Amino acid sequence: MILILKNRATDDQIDHVLQRVEALGLQHHLSRGTYRTIVGIIGDEELLREEPLKAIPGVAKVVPVLPPYKLASRDAHPDPSVVDVSGVKIGGGNLGMIAGPCSVEDPDRMHRIAEHVRASGANLFRGGAFKPRTSPYAFQGMGIDGLKLLREVGDQHGMPVVTEVTDPRLVEVVSEYADMLQVGARNMQNFALLTEVGKSKRPVLLKRGMAATINDLLMCAEYILSQGNMNVVLCERGIKSFDPATRNLFDVAAVPVVHGLSHLPIIVDPSHATGRPDLIPSCAMAGLAAGADGVHIEVHDCPEEAKSDGPQALLPDQYRELFSQMKSLAELLNKTISPVSETSA
Amino acid sequence: MILILKNRATDDQIDHVLQRVEALGLQHHLSRGTYRTIVGIIGDEELLREEPLKAIPGVAKVVPVLPPYKLASRDAHPDPSVVDVSGVKIGGGNLGMIAGPCSVEDPDRMHRIAEHVRASGANLFRGGAFKPRTSPYAFQGMGIDGLKLLREVGDQHGMPVVTEVTDPRLVEVVSEYADMLQVGARNMQNFALLTEVGKSKRPVLLKRGMAATINDLLMCAEYILSQGNMNVVLCERGIKSFDPATRNLFDVAAVPVVHGLSHLPIIVDPSHATGRPDLIPSCAMAGLAAGADGVHIEVHDCPEEAKSDGPQALLPDQYRELFSQMKSLAELLNKTISPVSETSA
Amino acid sequence: MILILKNRATDDQIDHVLQRVEALGLQHHLSRGTYRTIVGIIGDEELLREEPLKAIPGVAKVVPVLPPYKLASRDAHPDPSVVDVSGVKIGGGNLGMIAGPCSVEDPDRMHRIAEHVRASGANLFRGGAFKPRTSPYAFQGMGIDGLKLLREVGDQHGMPVVTEVTDPRLVEVVSEYADMLQVGARNMQNFALLTEVGKSKRPVLLKRGMAATINDLLMCAEYILSQGNMNVVLCERGIKSFDPATRNLFDVAAVPVVHGLSHLPIIVDPSHATGRPDLIPSCAMAGLAAGADGVHIEVHDCPEEAKSDGPQALLPDQYRELFSQMKSLAELLNKTISPVSETSA
Amino acid sequence: MILILKNRATDDQIDHVLQRVEALGLQHHLSRGTYRTIVGIIGDEELLREEPLKAIPGVAKVVPVLPPYKLASRDAHPDPSVVDVSGVKIGGGNLGMIAGPCSVEDPDRMHRIAEHVRASGANLFRGGAFKPRTSPYAFQGMGIDGLKLLREVGDQHGMPVVTEVTDPRLVEVVSEYADMLQVGARNMQNFALLTEVGKSKRPVLLKRGMAATINDLLMCAEYILSQGNMNVVLCERGIKSFDPATRNLFDVAAVPVVHGLSHLPIIVDPSHATGRPDLIPSCAMAGLAAGADGVHIEVHDCPEEAKSDGPQALLPDQYRELFSQMKSLAELLNKTISPVSETSA
Repeated sequence: MILILKNRATDDQIDHVLQRVEALGLQHHLSRGTYRTIVGIIGDEELLREEPLKAIPGVAKVVPVLPPYKLASRDAHPDPSVVDVSGVKIGGGNLGMIAGPCSVEDPDRMHRIAEHVRASGANLFRGGAFKPRTSPYAFQGMGIDGLKLLREVGDQHGMPVVTEVTDPRLVEVVSEYADMLQVGARNMQNFALLTEVGKSKRPVLLKRGMAATINDLLMCAEYILSQGNMNVVLCERGIKSFDPATRNLFDVAAVPVVHGLSHLPIIVDPSHATGRPDLIPSCAMAGLAAGADGVHIEVHDCPEEAKSDGPQALLPDQYRELFSQMKSLAELLNKTISPVSETSA
Repeated sequence: MILILKNRATDDQIDHVLQRVEALGLQHHLSRGTYRTIVGIIGDEELLREEPLKAIPGVAKVVPVLPPYKLASRDAHPDPSVVDVSGVKIGGGNLGMIAGPCSVEDPDRMHRIAEHVRASGANLFRGGAFKPRTSPYAFQGMGIDGLKLLREVGDQHGMPVVTEVTDPRLVEVVSEYADMLQVGARNMQNFALLTEVGKSKRPVLLKRGMAATINDLLMCAEYILSQGNMNVVLCERGIKSFDPATRNLFDVAAVPVVHGLSHLPIIVDPSHATGRPDLIPSCAMAGLAAGADGVHIEVHDCPEEAKSDGPQALLPDQYRELFSQMKSLAELLNKTISPVSETSA
Repeated sequence: MILILKNRATDDQIDHVLQRVEALGLQHHLSRGTYRTIVGIIGDEELLREEPLKAIPGVAKVVPVLPPYKLASRDAHPDPSVVDVSGVKIGGGNLGMIAGPCSVEDPDRMHRIAEHVRASGANLFRGGAFKPRTSPYAFQGMGIDGLKLLREVGDQHGMPVVTEVTDPRLVEVVSEYADMLQVGARNMQNFALLTEVGKSKRPVLLKRGMAATINDLLMCAEYILSQGNMNVVLCERGIKSFDPATRNLFDVAAVPVVHGLSHLPIIVDPSHATGRPDLIPSCAMAGLAAGADGVHIEVHDCPEEAKSDGPQALLPDQYRELFSQMKSLAELLNKTISPVSETSA
Repeated sequence: MILILKNRATDDQIDHVLQRVEALGLQHHLSRGTYRTIVGIIGDEELLREEPLKAIPGVAKVVPVLPPYKLASRDAHPDPSVVDVSGVKIGGGNLGMIAGPCSVEDPDRMHRIAEHVRASGANLFRGGAFKPRTSPYAFQGMGIDGLKLLREVGDQHGMPVVTEVTDPRLVEVVSEYADMLQVGARNMQNFALLTEVGKSKRPVLLKRGMAATINDLLMCAEYILSQGNMNVVLCERGIKSFDPATRNLFDVAAVPVVHGLSHLPIIVDPSHATGRPDLIPSCAMAGLAAGADGVHIEVHDCPEEAKSDGPQALLPDQYRELFSQMKSLAELLNKTISPVSETSA
């Protein structure tokens, strides 16, 4: 940690700063420059992070030297983590290819879509049973019945299932039915929820919030890791920006940035990032080319009847075509797509 | 609702669109322009909002005509709402002047700060007992002990108290001790939490999320209102932007925008909006001048020892001076600051 | 300047860094912390600013200690500057109240609007003769005839005139007719233009670009100052953001931020910041309350016939009413509105 | 064009709106809905675009039906344009691979870098002779001597050259030496400059401004096209965002968005988009995978000595390795990299 003092910091203020540092059992290193005095603090930066150093009179700026997350950091864990979702591997060269409708809907449709995406090559099936909707009047999901149906469809088609959990009170029941728990963008900083999924044994798919920096995202991963659940996969799904051309702004550079800072896998979700089916193939390919550890895509066989997010879904045929391109690219990049187990059907 | 069709929409597609509209019991109005065909839909827009119209083949764009919130809309309630927080009025010309430390801390300090801000003129006291912190390793608040202390301090100094609730499981206990429940920016779209505070009888202070449009904010208010709790006060506290000069970007125009769209009161929080004590007075004054129904400011008597957010707190003397300026401005603008009751001390 | 080295920086890399610093005639101060090595550089930071220090192997981060602008900095000039525009003072407690139509249009209308805004209390008249339009097919302004007309109207009503210059080749002729040269938001970083207005003797109104940080804005002011023209007034007119509720996001905190960093005056332009006449009064008041040194407002007597930006203009009566409120607020804040000279009419 | 009227629009206001439409020789189509009255306008939308319709009393919202650019639109020109830069093709399946240092520097270095990037496979050489620098005290480029040197290096290594022009007064001389004129991000809306390059015969590389929507970018292309210069290549180089992890936010979705709206080619510039050499390879690959018509990368053989932007340059070896990956990806995507002519050396 480095403290840059104000240009009119008095000697008394400087002494007070040094006393505060010493009181924490740390060493300091004073450097009086031509224009500013600088205090380098030597020792465990964690001891300082909680101290409101910037509020000490005379301090102009606090420059941390280390990232504020530890378990998520690549320093702590130089090799990429591989997260295992009931047999499907994500990270370290393995791609998690997640597909399915936005919401869990009627059983026939679910089976039909699952069959399609599995035949195309997807290795994880998704569907929301608890939907965080921006309108209180919108369809809120099928709830526990949806969870049961999702489980049944996954089992029948041999695909592990991913579903969102939106409430700390639901973590237990969702963990019973799902192979992977999704924390959505709007709940990325719902710390009560992060703590609960951290206590669960299920792998977690943590989506980046729309106003979250990559640092914020890694801090939220740290919440989960610090509870003992090390199976976290991050997901870039678009952030807020000023251009209405796309629903969100797909930050493809987040993929290599995360890979530089953390050992955790990161996948991309071009469906939510763009909100436009015509852009999904290009952005899915871009994500993989940037090094993503998987791709999350919403697929529906009749978007105009979808219970939610229909306008952004790919049709099964569009998904099949895209998957074949993604597969060629994965081969070029030496990535592996874990096969799913035999279907029970 | 208006549908703008694609420039190559076929007659079959147009017929299909019209059938969908009729199936909902609505009328349509077809207009074939030189370049595009447009379908005006006449009737209850609510019936359509849930339909994925944009996913119908041939539809290029969907233009809603009405706002998606009803209870929060000024159309539904032309006069400004006045929210009563245990005797302190906010809205319709009444200013809620909220002050206090970021976190509830030790009792002596709490009493000292409460005495200061009350003497300056504040009419609501704040302090966080459950803190949503970006780091899992940071101080998470005093919990229920903090609530009890806050209640005691409020009672002794005659000020209703405001505190944050971060978890749907805690709404009941927080409602027991607090006069007003705060939903923080990071939880603005925590719909499980919104639903619970909507079921509570306590007034709610709903802070705008950092990536939330004003429309998003009003939709979240609608969640609370739709549960039967009509006592919602909104709060502008800064949104994400690209300039690191301030922690967030204080969107002062949100005040008149909200007043145009909704009957709900809106206050400003320059402490979180700027993160810099030197900017708080200017931004507090700006907020009032823009028509805000109150000002939320963090005050601490020793910021360098604060358990959280010390660097953005005003000192009691700074607050007193600012309050006297705000009071003069309030008089110029014909606004009233509800007096607090006699202290029990 | 502080250099934070990478955690695996080798001794050779450290030596190389120190040699580079010494070669510039500067001293260094090495501090080996527990996790990172830090190099403090002592001496004239200007010598370093041009050096690509971050490209030196082993360097992780470069932390400048001083702002990169000198002439614009409050360090260099602690008292606020007062800019004199042909007798009208802006800054240091004096308010520049600029009003007029977006474009210079027909003479009768110009005289009529000028008479109105002068009667309301405005002390500077504006109108664009060269319009930077986003469409090549839009009205581009009356050109030199517009300048002549603006001059004539200003003279007749006793108001100095402000007009935009968009091309370095036009600075000379615009300087002939105008009292103050405006550099628009889209040209804020048109360095060729900044250099030319820097060579002119006319005061300059420099508008903040839509993607410009306050630091960027001050660097552009520095371009003008560094050419010898010290009469620069800054203008906050909204920056890009994600909420379509307003055309741009009015960053009212820019006013106190600039006042903290620089001696230059800063005014606000709520017309361009919001793009909505119904929000202009609130935002104008907010700007003044935040400490702005003036307000720039577009006024038109028949907005639906305006050659440009009609939808954001105030009517003369709306301006008169707003001016009377602004005047009361100015008195409360102890600000002065320079009177204009007697009209020649 | 569709006009949505206010919910309390009077009959007189509606009549006035209809009269305005008729006066322009257009037809209207009135639709009185349950909540709002809507006026569809039939005929040439261009006649209306300049009219301040939103300023007409009673009008709440104006919804344009067509894009405001014509020549840049894919409607006008369904096939992708192929721009020929002295023999190197960009667009329609042909990739423009631009490489070189940020600034033109000393001759030996220039030749050395050109030789390297040509050997790697680049087909266009870049270097800035006139540099738009954010600081007036920074190196501003070698000027005309730089142009001459760039020409000489290009000729000797058989590569057409691209260089930036920053001032309308310099378009003529830059056109004399360069094969392609670059308009930088900060000048994207410098309409005087756009008009001049529009009059030139040279192909233009138009970089997206940091606050520009894709619509804004296409409008600026329209400025150039409307002057008769149809050889415009767009460039995505990052826009402003809130995360300091990268210098700008690389909007890779801009590639398919532009391809949907326009026939113009679009390349990507990961050097400026990210500002970090470690992210350039991933983002270059992402851009190509998204369908970009080329990649612009800065290369320097000693970044720590570069006259500008050293910290974001790739080393020649890094570029060679990246090029080989990009080539494999180009083959997978069936894209062609135009070969350069024989060197004269």
